[in-house]
This record gives sequence, C-alpha cells and structure tokens, in this order.
Amino acid sequence: MIGKPLASIVSAGLSKFGKIEGLYARELFALAAKEAFERCPNIDPKKDVQALFIGHMGESYEHQGHTGATVADWAGLLHIPATRTECACASSGAALRAGIMAIMSGLYDIVMVGGVEKMTHRSTPEVTEFLAMASDFPFEQWHGITFPGLYALMATAHMHKYGTTEEQLAMVAVKNHHNGCLNPKAHMQREVTLEKALSSRVIAWPLKLYDCSLITDGASCLILTKPEIAKKYTDMPVHIIGSGQASDSIGIYEREQFTSLTAAKEAAKQAYKMAGLTPNDIQVAEVHDCFTIAEIIAYEDLGFCKPGEGGKLIEEGVTTLDGSLPVNTSGGLKAKGHPVGATGTAQAYEIYLQLTGQAEKRQVENVEIGLTHNVGGSGATATVHIYRRG
Amino acid sequence: MIGKPLASIVSAGLSKFGKIEGLYARELFALAAKEAFERCPNIDPKKDVQALFIGHMGESYEHQGHTGATVADWAGLLHIPATRTECACASSGAALRAGIMAIMSGLYDIVMVGGVEKMTHRSTPEVTEFLAMASDFPFEQWHGITFPGLYALMATAHMHKYGTTEEQLAMVAVKNHHNGCLNPKAHMQREVTLEKALSSRVIAWPLKLYDCSLITDGASCLILTKPEIAKKYTDMPVHIIGSGQASDSIGIYEREQFTSLTAAKEAAKQAYKMAGLTPNDIQVAEVHDCFTIAEIIAYEDLGFCKPGEGGKLIEEGVTTLDGSLPVNTSGGLKAKGHPVGATGTAQAYEIYLQLTGQAEKRQVENVEIGLTHNVGGSGATATVHIYRRG
Repeated sequence: MIGKPLASIVSAGLSKFGKIEGLYARELFALAAKEAFERCPNIDPKKDVQALFIGHMGESYEHQGHTGATVADWAGLLHIPATRTECACASSGAALRAGIMAIMSGLYDIVMVGGVEKMTHRSTPEVTEFLAMASDFPFEQWHGITFPGLYALMATAHMHKYGTTEEQLAMVAVKNHHNGCLNPKAHMQREVTLEKALSSRVIAWPLKLYDCSLITDGASCLILTKPEIAKKYTDMPVHIIGSGQASDSIGIYEREQFTSLTAAKEAAKQAYKMAGLTPNDIQVAEVHDCFTIAEIIAYEDLGFCKPGEGGKLIEEGVTTLDGSLPVNTSGGLKAKGHPVGATGTAQAYEIYLQLTGQAEKRQVENVEIGLTHNVGGSGATATVHIYRRG
Repeated sequence: MIGKPLASIVSAGLSKFGKIEGLYARELFALAAKEAFERCPNIDPKKDVQALFIGHMGESYEHQGHTGATVADWAGLLHIPATRTECACASSGAALRAGIMAIMSGLYDIVMVGGVEKMTHRSTPEVTEFLAMASDFPFEQWHGITFPGLYALMATAHMHKYGTTEEQLAMVAVKNHHNGCLNPKAHMQREVTLEKALSSRVIAWPLKLYDCSLITDGASCLILTKPEIAKKYTDMPVHIIGSGQASDSIGIYEREQFTSLTAAKEAAKQAYKMAGLTPNDIQVAEVHDCFTIAEIIAYEDLGFCKPGEGGKLIEEGVTTLDGSLPVNTSGGLKAKGHPVGATGTAQAYEIYLQLTGQAEKRQVENVEIGLTHNVGGSGATATVHIYRRG
C-alpha cells in the first residue's frame, strides 16, 4: 500500500545555475526563495515560514560559515530558527530530511529547506581542494587523491567486474547534456556528441572532461507544509512519501567493494519501504551524477536494473527523456551544474516541476511518482526521497 | 502547568577538555561516545542507535568536512544516518534540537546528538580567523574585526547604558574559574583572583585575557530516547521539556542595539512557554560565556534579572555555586573550555549530571530543573533548552 505523506511541497524555487558573478551565496539563495514565494502567494514570508534548514557544503569558498542565519535574513526570514546542515554534496538532501522531521515533529506547520553554494569565483585548484575536504584527510587527501580520482577507482572497478565501457559512461553525458539544453536554468545548455565526449581530455582515467559534473553557482529551495494543510496553499502539492538516509565510511579504503554505494542502497531501501513502492513504480528520477559512473552505479543501487547492468540501461535508452524511466531530466549535475550544497533540493525542485506539469520543454507525460538520490562525497552519505503528485 | 517531555536524555558523555594532542576530532568524539555507552549498558551501539546529529563548526581546523559520517564510523555507528549541523558556536545546540525533532517525528526511538572541535593544533591567529567565519564576511571580517572586538562593542554599549563595570565582568571569570577547579574535565582548573583578572592584558577593551573563553579541544554527546521508553534504559532519565531556537542578522551592524541578543530572548521565550515555566523556576543553568560580558547579557536575556541588572546579579553572588541560581557550574566556556562545535551538548551534559546527582564536587543540592543557553557567533543563532529530572 502506498505510504502516507510525511510532508508536502507547496512551492519551490531555483536560482539560475551557472557562473553568476557579483552575488554572494546569500543573494543567490534569496533569488531561489523569491521564486518560491512568488509561486505561492498564499504564503507570507514574514509570518508563515517558521524554520529554515539550509544545505551548504563549504565555508572556505566565501570565508563564510553560519549560513543558516545569513540566508534567513537575506530571504526575508529574519529571526526564525535557521540551521545549516552539511553532509558534503548531500548537504541539502540532509536539509530536506531535517525539514521533513521538523514537520513530522508537530513543532512546525511550514518550513523552508534549501541549499546554496557559490564556487566559480575560486580557481579550479582551490575548488578541488575545498571539495576534497569531504573525503578522508589522513588517508585520502593527505596522499593527494581528489574526487575525480576516487570516482575513477569506482569506474575501473565497475569496468573490471561488469565490463562497463567508456562509451557507456559517455552516453550518460550525451543524455544529460541533451536534457540540459531543454532547461533554461541549466549551467550548460549545449549538446555533446559521443565522439566529443570520448575524445575530451582525461581527468582521471577512465573519466574524461565530459564525465565530470560542473563547478557551478546556484541555490534551491522548497516550502514544506504538513500534508493536511497543503491544499490551503496550492492546488498542486507534491507529497513526500518516502525518506531514507544512511552513512558509510568516509574513506573508500575501508569499504569491501567499490562498485556500489552501500549508503545509497540502504537509503533507497528505507525510502521504498516507507513509500510502500518498488523501483518499478518510479516514473522519473534525479540521481547524483557527479561523474558519469555515479549515474550508472545509481541505476543499480536504486534497483532500476540489476547490479552490473547500469551500462546496458543507458545503452538501451531506458533513461532518456522519451525512455520508460527518464533520469536527470533537468540535465543533472553534469549539465544543469553542481553547486554542491544546493544539489539535493535542486533535484527535488525538478521532480516538483515534473509532477506538477511545470517542466516545459522537458516535461515527461503523465508522471505521478518521482525519486531523488543525493550522494555526499564518495558515498559516505546518501539520501533518497520519493514523491507523489498530490 | 509543566510541559510534556519532548525527548529524554538517558546517557551522556564528554571527552576531557583541553589541549589534547595526537587525536583527530573523530577520535575525540569516540571518547565522548564511549563514556555515553559505558554509562548506559542497556543500549547496544551496534543496533539501538538509529541516527546521529553532530555539531561541528569549522572544516578548516583539520581540513575535514563531512563530519557526520566520519564520527559515526569512529563511534561504532557505521551506516546510520549522520548529519552535521552548523550554527557557529551553537552548532551542537542545533544538533540537540534536530535530535529532539527526530525523536518527536516518530521516525526514531533512539538518537545520538553531540558536537566536536579540534582547535589547539592551530596557531592563535589561525583559530581567530577560522572563528571569524561565523561573522559577516563583507562588512565585518573584511574590515578586520574579530569576535573579541564584536563582544567588546557589546561590553562598551552595556557599560555606557547600564553602568556595568570592568570589575563585574572580571567577577564572572573569578566564579567560573572557581567552578572549573571542581570539574576534572575542565581545560583550566586554576583559580583566578579579581586583581589578576583585572590586570591581565587587554585583548579588545574592556575585554582582557581573563574575559575571554579558551581555545580548546573536546567532544560531547547525549543519547536521546522517546520519553515513554526512557526508563527501559536508565533509572535516572532527564526529560527535555522546552526547546527554543531563533536567528538574527549575521552582522551586528544591522541590529537596533548591542546590549542584548534578540535571538537569545526569543529562543528563551519559546523554551519557557513550551516548558510551562518562568525564569524563577530555573535552579541551575549553563550559559554561553564566550566572553564575560556574554554571561552578564545572558542573565538578562534569560530573565534571571531585569535588563541592565546582570552586573549586579554577579556582584551579589546569586550565580555562584552556593548562590540561589548557580550558573556555569562546569566552569563554563571560560574555564571548562570552548571547543566550539562541542559546547551546546557539553552544556547539556553538565545539566544532565547536575539533575541526576552525578556532578561530584560541584553538585548543587536538590535541583530538578535546569537550563542551557547556547549562542552562535555574536548572536545570529541562539538555542535554549529546559530540562527536568525524570
């Protein structure tokens, strides 16, 4: 039986993703909040929003921590309780989950959750270093490995064990770049051919430039309410019916294998159980494609196919926009961009648009059930959420 | 009428506070978790603890973010959902509140909350810079002001408006150093005389060395359960009956006045209301004395005295260990130490010990109701919690 709503999304906002010059993170977040408020005029920011949870990964980018209070003020929410959550690139997946628990606790009727990151004003080596803080200091960072290298280890393990090919990895990029072209808020709105992706320069073999997601500025947010009052604010709520989160060792050296993420499988299991659904019920999904191999592993961890068959799934076109299970209709981290703290709730934003028929050129027809999959670091955190059209 | 328990503390742990060499933050946290598990043998870490919320302020100290997953693994809690909360020095006050909501949501029966910071391996200028990230970048940090300067502004405003004296500030240090001598886990277990405090070197006038809290390594944690099952795990639970949190502008330049913290007053109001209590009901309290002026302002914000009478309250001895309302029996941030992320739940640890009669040499007789007051930055976040002996 389909699960009871835990909380309901009554509105959502997203800043333009890309290289946004001249704005602080707090200002980017205010843009996302402004869209959410404009989309739902029945909510008065000054008195209705009772708490804020904000995913923000790195204080180093802007030399600015204490993000909760900062963005609350800039979003017109001065004085409400405002807490930053940090689980690396799953920071706003964790914010979403904290917001759901805040609603379920009975303490609040309406909360905002979201995420933000301002990254592009920093050099690539700086960003690479800041991101690496989400990996293990003594046994990973210290020895010089960064995230492309860690995901390359997973890719080679997957290729070795299952025969996954570089072409299959590149197909993920081709698909997501295509979807990004249909999303006016995507960072990169440009098609890429299989040949171009395959011939791009190697970052950490087998991962090439087009296998890597983008360094992006952006912010995202959702307004959550108790399910029983959602219709007071919108005719088109989206109910969250499953929420899972799990952790794993920070360093991948501690893990038994590199070809799947235990935390993601565990989070998915929790979310499916709560929702009373199976992978077959999912009609549209946003998954954490920080690298192309991550999307292929996500297919398997989420049960969209059997372990080892992720490469075949992309090759058969199942996950393209006109396939039977479109994945990353937004363009994903690969083309929409990956402002790390903002990604989790940006994925939820896309599913909100899809389930309410607001996804315009990339709208999937007749979708009622969606899923988001948000991963922190090399899989030490994962959150999975399942959504139903209200 | 006294409020219903929101969640119950069935155990707590604290690492030694001080300059702890050779341990990473994750190892410090494991020490705190070990104490909590040893204190409550009925809880099996491997199967009973269902989620973790950890306050951690700065990724810069150890070049390490993603603290939730990291400390979960080292505490023997691999694979559970683990989220870092960051609200500057109120990071673990926010973790406590997130844990309470997690219990109240019905999703979990048992969660761990805590905090950690490893600071002393860094130089004082580095620590000063890392801490400053909790203040406003464009309008505070950029111009060179750091936290001693921000609190000095509050101190001079308080002196100007109310006649608060440098002697009264120093009395807070004398009291808290005395209490620290009775706490074997305190960083500084050394008495200070009024003369010595007053003649110590000026950091940011009127604040002198002894008006400032310590740079400290440490970790703290609590095990929370649903109130109805608390007695299954301990004969001496402590119920949390009030929880408040609020925010304010990140920069103090935006505020109408500097002599009180609006967020702290608002958080206290919420907590008192939920607990069905007034300031007169509080029998023991831990307040956020990052600087001596902060303790005096806390007295006023919490309603222990009228605005402007905080200096008189310390002068009259009301808040000493044998006074009618002992404050910072642990030694406070001033003498126990201030490992920033760990402070909120370290305050709760002290109240847990006091209400269960485990505070040894600093035990206050017959206390049933306690309070903690945890402030982030210069007051952009505040959390207040109220506790009752079970």
